[in-house]
Amino acid sequence: MALSCPDGEQTAQLTFFGLFALQHRGQEAAGIAVADGKRARLYKDAGLVTRVFTPKRLAPLVGYHAIGHTRYSTTGSSAARNAQPFLVETMHGPLALAHNGNLVNAAELRTELLGRGFGLTATSDTEVLALMLAAASGRSWEDRLERTMPAWKGAYSLVLLGADRVVAVRDPWGFRPLSVGRLPDGGHAVASETCALRTLGCTEVREVAPGEIVTLHGHEVTSRQALTPAGRGARCSFEFVYFSRPDSEWDGSSVHAVRQRLGEELARECPAVADVVIPVPDSSIPAAIGYARESGIAFNDGLIKNRYIGRTFIEPTQHLRERRVAMKFNALSANLAGKRVVVIDDSLVRGTTAGPLVTLIREAGASEVHLRITCPPIAHPCHMGVDMGTYDELIAHRLSIEELRVHIGCDSLAFLSLDAMMRAIGRADGYCNACFTGHYPIEVGDVAEKGAFEGVLA
Amino acid sequence: MALSCPDGEQTAQLTFFGLFALQHRGQEAAGIAVADGKRARLYKDAGLVTRVFTPKRLAPLVGYHAIGHTRYSTTGSSAARNAQPFLVETMHGPLALAHNGNLVNAAELRTELLGRGFGLTATSDTEVLALMLAAASGRSWEDRLERTMPAWKGAYSLVLLGADRVVAVRDPWGFRPLSVGRLPDGGHAVASETCALRTLGCTEVREVAPGEIVTLHGHEVTSRQALTPAGRGARCSFEFVYFSRPDSEWDGSSVHAVRQRLGEELARECPAVADVVIPVPDSSIPAAIGYARESGIAFNDGLIKNRYIGRTFIEPTQHLRERRVAMKFNALSANLAGKRVVVIDDSLVRGTTAGPLVTLIREAGASEVHLRITCPPIAHPCHMGVDMGTYDELIAHRLSIEELRVHIGCDSLAFLSLDAMMRAIGRADGYCNACFTGHYPIEVGDVAEKGAFEGVLA
Amino acid sequence: MALSCPDGEQTAQLTFFGLFALQHRGQEAAGIAVADGKRARLYKDAGLVTRVFTPKRLAPLVGYHAIGHTRYSTTGSSAARNAQPFLVETMHGPLALAHNGNLVNAAELRTELLGRGFGLTATSDTEVLALMLAAASGRSWEDRLERTMPAWKGAYSLVLLGADRVVAVRDPWGFRPLSVGRLPDGGHAVASETCALRTLGCTEVREVAPGEIVTLHGHEVTSRQALTPAGRGARCSFEFVYFSRPDSEWDGSSVHAVRQRLGEELARECPAVADVVIPVPDSSIPAAIGYARESGIAFNDGLIKNRYIGRTFIEPTQHLRERRVAMKFNALSANLAGKRVVVIDDSLVRGTTAGPLVTLIREAGASEVHLRITCPPIAHPCHMGVDMGTYDELIAHRLSIEELRVHIGCDSLAFLSLDAMMRAIGRADGYCNACFTGHYPIEVGDVAEKGAFEGVLA
Amino acid sequence: MALSCPDGEQTAQLTFFGLFALQHRGQEAAGIAVADGKRARLYKDAGLVTRVFTPKRLAPLVGYHAIGHTRYSTTGSSAARNAQPFLVETMHGPLALAHNGNLVNAAELRTELLGRGFGLTATSDTEVLALMLAAASGRSWEDRLERTMPAWKGAYSLVLLGADRVVAVRDPWGFRPLSVGRLPDGGHAVASETCALRTLGCTEVREVAPGEIVTLHGHEVTSRQALTPAGRGARCSFEFVYFSRPDSEWDGSSVHAVRQRLGEELARECPAVADVVIPVPDSSIPAAIGYARESGIAFNDGLIKNRYIGRTFIEPTQHLRERRVAMKFNALSANLAGKRVVVIDDSLVRGTTAGPLVTLIREAGASEVHLRITCPPIAHPCHMGVDMGTYDELIAHRLSIEELRVHIGCDSLAFLSLDAMMRAIGRADGYCNACFTGHYPIEVGDVAEKGAFEGVLA
Repeated sequence: MALSCPDGEQTAQLTFFGLFALQHRGQEAAGIAVADGKRARLYKDAGLVTRVFTPKRLAPLVGYHAIGHTRYSTTGSSAARNAQPFLVETMHGPLALAHNGNLVNAAELRTELLGRGFGLTATSDTEVLALMLAAASGRSWEDRLERTMPAWKGAYSLVLLGADRVVAVRDPWGFRPLSVGRLPDGGHAVASETCALRTLGCTEVREVAPGEIVTLHGHEVTSRQALTPAGRGARCSFEFVYFSRPDSEWDGSSVHAVRQRLGEELARECPAVADVVIPVPDSSIPAAIGYARESGIAFNDGLIKNRYIGRTFIEPTQHLRERRVAMKFNALSANLAGKRVVVIDDSLVRGTTAGPLVTLIREAGASEVHLRITCPPIAHPCHMGVDMGTYDELIAHRLSIEELRVHIGCDSLAFLSLDAMMRAIGRADGYCNACFTGHYPIEVGDVAEKGAFEGVLA
Repeated sequence: MALSCPDGEQTAQLTFFGLFALQHRGQEAAGIAVADGKRARLYKDAGLVTRVFTPKRLAPLVGYHAIGHTRYSTTGSSAARNAQPFLVETMHGPLALAHNGNLVNAAELRTELLGRGFGLTATSDTEVLALMLAAASGRSWEDRLERTMPAWKGAYSLVLLGADRVVAVRDPWGFRPLSVGRLPDGGHAVASETCALRTLGCTEVREVAPGEIVTLHGHEVTSRQALTPAGRGARCSFEFVYFSRPDSEWDGSSVHAVRQRLGEELARECPAVADVVIPVPDSSIPAAIGYARESGIAFNDGLIKNRYIGRTFIEPTQHLRERRVAMKFNALSANLAGKRVVVIDDSLVRGTTAGPLVTLIREAGASEVHLRITCPPIAHPCHMGVDMGTYDELIAHRLSIEELRVHIGCDSLAFLSLDAMMRAIGRADGYCNACFTGHYPIEVGDVAEKGAFEGVLA
Repeated sequence: MALSCPDGEQTAQLTFFGLFALQHRGQEAAGIAVADGKRARLYKDAGLVTRVFTPKRLAPLVGYHAIGHTRYSTTGSSAARNAQPFLVETMHGPLALAHNGNLVNAAELRTELLGRGFGLTATSDTEVLALMLAAASGRSWEDRLERTMPAWKGAYSLVLLGADRVVAVRDPWGFRPLSVGRLPDGGHAVASETCALRTLGCTEVREVAPGEIVTLHGHEVTSRQALTPAGRGARCSFEFVYFSRPDSEWDGSSVHAVRQRLGEELARECPAVADVVIPVPDSSIPAAIGYARESGIAFNDGLIKNRYIGRTFIEPTQHLRERRVAMKFNALSANLAGKRVVVIDDSLVRGTTAGPLVTLIREAGASEVHLRITCPPIAHPCHMGVDMGTYDELIAHRLSIEELRVHIGCDSLAFLSLDAMMRAIGRADGYCNACFTGHYPIEVGDVAEKGAFEGVLA
Repeated sequence: MALSCPDGEQTAQLTFFGLFALQHRGQEAAGIAVADGKRARLYKDAGLVTRVFTPKRLAPLVGYHAIGHTRYSTTGSSAARNAQPFLVETMHGPLALAHNGNLVNAAELRTELLGRGFGLTATSDTEVLALMLAAASGRSWEDRLERTMPAWKGAYSLVLLGADRVVAVRDPWGFRPLSVGRLPDGGHAVASETCALRTLGCTEVREVAPGEIVTLHGHEVTSRQALTPAGRGARCSFEFVYFSRPDSEWDGSSVHAVRQRLGEELARECPAVADVVIPVPDSSIPAAIGYARESGIAFNDGLIKNRYIGRTFIEPTQHLRERRVAMKFNALSANLAGKRVVVIDDSLVRGTTAGPLVTLIREAGASEVHLRITCPPIAHPCHMGVDMGTYDELIAHRLSIEELRVHIGCDSLAFLSLDAMMRAIGRADGYCNACFTGHYPIEVGDVAEKGAFEGVLA
């Protein structure tokens, strides 16, 4: 999230509201950095956007240019130490960076920086990106980006704050989304998802192209194509399946519309004889509507989700642990009793929730439970910025579909095929489907297992 | 929320999880009191259940009997001072009380207590109830309740904690819900809604009858009918329309099923020529499904709600104030553009959201917007425990339906009739519909306007 | 602490600064209540005055009249539940009370209130006092006090806040101090110690007499003698020995001057052949100066105290536990090595610190250590508001002076006699010396051991 | 503060208690870093040591080697961003640094680092030191220190944490103190002041020499003389006058003993005809004892200090602002009334307290007030780590002694001469007296005024 607007009064607040719309992309930490043409200021902390920023903390963040970030929960690292933006003073003035994605050669780059005598304070990629830029030559941040980007292998949709501008850049594969729009009161904004731009009332929304550098400077927007896009691109299909908000658009398609088409394709490819189609709320609702529409089976709610999804520190005792899923979901027996039920879920990653959900649905009286998944089995880790877990944690890496069905306890289980998924997305290629296929668009080498790189800062 | 279980180890934790399922009934404060046969302990504070209770705060709450409460947000009073349960030492031992509802004669009872020389530390009804019970004679809490209840006019579903038991009681009108069930590992629980009992795995769930006193004491449940039910009863129909969770059941009906029937009735009574039916998420989803099913118009999502609904202390600037609803909702143009849209909303209370929502939907390209409401206009304040606002605040008290339509800016506006609403609920009478009709089941006298009673504690 | 001033703007702030000067009288909790002629407001919480009150929390406390309190740490009770002031609504309007002291018949009064049907929310005496006043008849708080005071047996220096006034009252024995003065900008203030009145710049400072009721109402002060003083009075001599700040005055004497005279008396009564006199800082400094002056032995520092005396939650490991006193004190070998040292300490209560201090002093090279105590052995519990511990905890109850000397490990040990202590105070009688003599001015009956009364609220 | 001990269990706790004894050297922030032979962990935050460290925060800090820091309050910089230790990963493994002092060439070194492409996250010298070491070559931290130290101009007593050791080093001038000792249970510790080593029970305490590098590695201590001491050295005389705790020793002298001699010299050089000598507590107590002893005038307390010196966020209103000093001190009229008073204060820096104190003393009845200062007028800023303020803020830079006397309102005012001060310290030279004389041991150039260097991070 970033913006530049001629009215410095509301810069930080607009950034705050933009981040609020992107909260689903990261709940671990939040931060905003602003620049006033000369100096930069930063506030960041662990927690949700609304907890981190109070009026008192937002007030000093005065400036024309701002970047913000919500940090995605990742295991084994300090939330506070790795919170973003990352702000440094450089010979070129202040530099703040916020980054969505993951570099597959981060360990190498890190080793290289250390070898050049740098000291690293964090374990995140973002510091590596920032220090490489700090040390780069070139007359402007755009020049320095252009010279440094060839060394970066992996997914990076990043926003950069200099003293007098915001620069947004996307890797040449285009793994993660990034869009730019025009603010209603002047100035421009950049965000991972268009839902945040819409929240701010932006018009003229367009995607930042893979390999493109976009500069925001108040009323002006300029652009250069720093790197040639890598082939047809490698957009993350999982953004459509699960990660993005349904009210975002990407690659010319509405996420919600794609999810409905995923449901339609699923109905065609994996039909079921049933009385009702229910979603696992909230992410699978559009697909369930699509499945119902295409199959002619009635759509209805079957599971109710507790809206108060904040973390609790109270660990269930043994008695309650068996019913942990009941903390989050209740089944509606009025809609399920005596019925053959198709349950639509977006994906199966670690496979811990599906089994208890099926049990809940059966306890509510369903006579048959048919689980349908709107993407293929996820059998390979993501190295491009989604924390899906290691091979050991991915259940589809360990079990066959029939074994999965038995494990989950449903009457039938089916996954959408890769082809059908791509049909729903509306593209034949140009996407990264490595988590389904194991074919990574970039060689991932030694980092094939998460955690292969171990730093010395605990 | 209350429970009594022979295994004292998990009493507080079960209560916590029950309260978590009831969080939607009150977000202002939370508390739990426990008793171990001799002494009582209490912890309560302002905030959500998950913020108030950490392992450290839950740990000392050891006992066999517990009551808990989530406090509904009401204006003009101190959250901390009025948090519940309310715990006192009495000549009969410890007494804690948690209460859902509102007494219409609270001011009178308060004056009476003061006149008898009592000092009151809070401004809530709960203290009044507790001190009246403390001063009552009778051999047991059940006896004292039976003798005191005739003086209480209004809505009260309350749970009482004594040294060695939990007692649950419902007013003879039965305004607010209250149910009891059997815990899977022994013991019993009482909760305002069955969704909490289901979360805890309860079986043998039944409603506490209007005027009934139910005692939980470990494995035992006993009951007495303290007061004759008041006529056919006066259940709150707004629980079905909006307040209860859809996975709860009440008066023999599933809330979700009633909401679907409200949609069906609405489709019959207030049809529209349209291309798509969309809900205002989340409460109107079942009704929109019902409307779509009955009308034959396709159901789809049209508005996406930000799931991170926690309070923010950041006030939007002027620029953003105009777009405040955009913080909460985005419209899906893919599903709305060029379409005639039926929007289903559960109710119109203060009328601040409907207009901006209609604007959002139009901006997303809808050619027509038809707003359909699943209950009649709310033109009268509630004195039975729902904070709907005063006559001045209720928009339907001030404007005719056509004036409302113009105010909101939709192409057509229609409300479900009282008869149709009652058909959806499945009862001809036995409900309080005072907020629609102004016919209060109890004379409300001087308290007809909220805030008429002014204490001396600020 | 209480005040009434015609300028309502600074009432709460003046109270805050007064409490800050009284912080040594209680570190557990702090609170302020204000009244504006009609309504009363309260804020209180556990913690030091400067932690409890931020500008945000002080701001709403607007009014002409205020009372405040710092709560003394007592074991076994909830700091939050028993924090003061205690505020209730009564038939006579708002009533807030803050209380220093202890009623010996609290349990009886409590039982009586419960028997009359009252519910008690706290375990402190203050609620008992407040509810008795709430229920009392009489045209004014002063009348009601006058009628109720005869029932109160024990120590109470209390301040009362009504809608339009502050009332201060002291028990007829005069156990605990209480003084009144005139504020420099108009209005008057009452405080336990004159140091707080001096901090606020008060003039015309005088003691509230035992049994006297003083009313502050802006520019006016009125007084009535509600109860005849009990004989010659029973002032607490321990206030002079230890509890009061040295810059306070009481019973016509400067606390600092009395402490110097205690040192002089001690030098005469318990001489020592030595090279240096050192105090245990800070409370024994004046007495050590007096001892040195009278004995002709040089005064010097021998122990340095860490000024950062805030609580730590870090428990020392075994290694450090043996040196716990080292966290608080270091010995100055430059002033002690090879010397015969007289150590002046104010009192010996539980006897846990004296031994380690003597060890520290020996380790610093002292050739002899002679411990001199400025009061007699404390062999009996206090029931008048000082938490000295039970008989079991009082080391002088268990050991003879010679046993004490061996336990502490000093070369000689001597206590000032009661007569000499009273000479230093300058009075022959009129003081409570029960902790030294066991002769309680009021029959203490069953409460002879602390904790004899057990409530049902944990 | 640093230590290395073979028992890793108590490393962090010992460091905590050591820091607690050094709290007077910095109240703004506190931190501890530990290393276990391989990895390093850090926790730091703004606040006092006892607030920053709870058992929960100390528990993860497990390792054999530790360094800790309390940060001195300096204006205009972010407490959180500049808290210490500063921890980085380097090509040589983890490196943490904590630093007491100030580099006069920090801006130059900073510019040099930026020019080499480094990015700086903080505005403190410590990061500069750390990054220079990270980039240095050499086989060990000791080697790298030896090669880097020649570039550092100014005051630095620093402790360094590597994966398997603690290294302590002191600049060749020896501006700030640093000592090393042997822990009672094995291992060694280093601290700015010996009071912390005494608190931990250390024996074999000795000073780290100017230019010396000391390595602690469990049971072993090794040392090398990295730089030749600069001439006779430039110890800070203000440590003796004010900064150090009286129970510390430095340069072979007890701080307390030096302060008493300062008082004795002052009595000889600046006598007064008076009845009583009083200190401004607490720092001037030893000097006042010395003055009294030498002059034959009686020593006594005249001012009582409020022991609860924690920060308050409540700003006094106008009425109270005039009496701000009354929040901190009360005068004892019993000891002052009608007397000619000598007041001993350690130093006059900004001159804001002396005047109000003299007023307090006069209000308490003193007939004459003679102010005596235990060091010469401070007329020049310190660039070696003590925040004395700028030339504009130093009152002795602006006013003559007679002007000062009038400003303060005392009857006479006298300062100890430099020669007499050095006699009390017991050395003819080897000390930095730049704040008195303006003769800086190192050229201070452009940084002659604080804040001359302005970074771009706000």
